[in-house]
Amino acid sequence: MAELKYEIVENIAVLSEGAKGWQKELNLISWNDRAPKYDLRDWSEDHTKMGKGVTLSSEEVQELKKALQELTL
Amino acid sequence: MAELKYEIVENIAVLSEGAKGWQKELNLISWNDRAPKYDLRDWSEDHTKMGKGVTLSSEEVQELKKALQELTL
Repeated sequence: MAELKYEIVENIAVLSEGAKGWQKELNLISWNDRAPKYDLRDWSEDHTKMGKGVTLSSEEVQELKKALQELTL
Repeated sequence: MAELKYEIVENIAVLSEGAKGWQKELNLISWNDRAPKYDLRDWSEDHTKMGKGVTLSSEEVQELKKALQELTL
């Protein structure tokens, strides 16, 4: 598998901290030099290791925002 | 690997629709009969196949909601 290149353009929010310093984060990430996308996943403390996650377009983030506003937590 | 049992307790929102009817969804899902958690991932049209995603606690969803409210999209 080819190496995955990524750059965390902006760390928007840390949602929680788990074991060994891993954090669930919302970031703006550029994958393989492409235009940055929103990204929600777990990261190790130094951001060298990542867990599974989802990448979201601005449109999807907009829909998510709407859905959460209507949600009673 | 043991079979993964899941039940979609509530379909909260569909964020987008992709190729072959796959949808990015925010759901409340019970994994292996445990208490339901929020879950953001891609699903096939009939919900028999799933993509990678993230599972979120209510606290994490609350933090995400706050972060998105402050975000200019």
